[in-house]
Amino acid sequence: MTSTADAPRPPGRPRSVRADEAIIEATLDLLAEGSTIEAISVEAIAARAGVGKATIYRRWAGKDALLHDALRTLKGEPPQPSGRSVREDLIALVGAVGQNIDPRAAKIMPCLVPNVKRNAEHYALYQSIVEPRRAVMREVLRRGIRDGELRPDIDVEVTLALITGPLLIQRMLNWNPDLDETTLPARVVDQVLAGIQAR
Amino acid sequence: MTSTADAPRPPGRPRSVRADEAIIEATLDLLAEGSTIEAISVEAIAARAGVGKATIYRRWAGKDALLHDALRTLKGEPPQPSGRSVREDLIALVGAVGQNIDPRAAKIMPCLVPNVKRNAEHYALYQSIVEPRRAVMREVLRRGIRDGELRPDIDVEVTLALITGPLLIQRMLNWNPDLDETTLPARVVDQVLAGIQAR
Repeated sequence: MTSTADAPRPPGRPRSVRADEAIIEATLDLLAEGSTIEAISVEAIAARAGVGKATIYRRWAGKDALLHDALRTLKGEPPQPSGRSVREDLIALVGAVGQNIDPRAAKIMPCLVPNVKRNAEHYALYQSIVEPRRAVMREVLRRGIRDGELRPDIDVEVTLALITGPLLIQRMLNWNPDLDETTLPARVVDQVLAGIQAR
Repeated sequence: MTSTADAPRPPGRPRSVRADEAIIEATLDLLAEGSTIEAISVEAIAARAGVGKATIYRRWAGKDALLHDALRTLKGEPPQPSGRSVREDLIALVGAVGQNIDPRAAKIMPCLVPNVKRNAEHYALYQSIVEPRRAVMREVLRRGIRDGELRPDIDVEVTLALITGPLLIQRMLNWNPDLDETTLPARVVDQVLAGIQAR
């Protein structure tokens, strides 16, 4: 591995937010250029960001914490449910499955797939991104049960997989070329609701 | 790329079936050892199988056709529906999603994911494996509609994605660690059927 630690700092003390952004950007640039999660080093990130390693370690406990924040940046925040109806909230949340706000994601995300199940650190990183998004959906379903929109006996975890799976396989693999991605969230949610709505 | 064409043929003329098997096995071994779909060559496969390139070209039109057959071997045949009930048939078919009969698949299949959407040949290869399996499921749903088990107005393509998606994301990514893979096929099928069964 090439080590390029102790890169020259830019003149003057960088403002804290600007340094954070530069470090996140450098991480995403390196991943998009083909660095793997294993191979990427704090040294290389520091060099690319034009900061010292100590600046990174002051802000993040280590490489994993930094990668977590970088990948979160890539995906953006999960949409916040409006609370008007279960249907509307689920369509918005399902529409965001497999979507990213940063174009570098198209290079980075598919490359993570092969290692998610092989490597415990990858898996923990993956779950740290996925679980908060799943939690938002879960809360919408629970609210639907409390408000009487959904049957009280529904299988919440299976419902989460049912509404997420189709969009994820479609966006990751274009699983079925005959399915239109733009109309799919509403079609999926409507069909799932047909089975779990209170009558 | 190391070229090892013109490997010594084994003495005597290999029986046709045995040569086919050796060629498929060589292809899968090379892929499992890390050869990519792009990098793997007919020369390398021939050398590994102990046959001449001409033997391969007599049986397959080219590398893509050979890869197709090798990946099909990896997955095995899709289960044949028994025809007793839509529920039983779908549970069997959904249970086979993301499953492979060959242990080399765990090395090979995840590595195909990053390129499925980037590379038209990969995508065609992927669809040539997936579409026949989807067609078997589609026919079970259509039979259910004809026999009056399922409502005639169901969205067949969305139903296929609903029953396939959860198993695929679970087996590919262990998407939700709280879901038990062994009970998931029946839970998914039962919940989907709740929304599409004739009443």
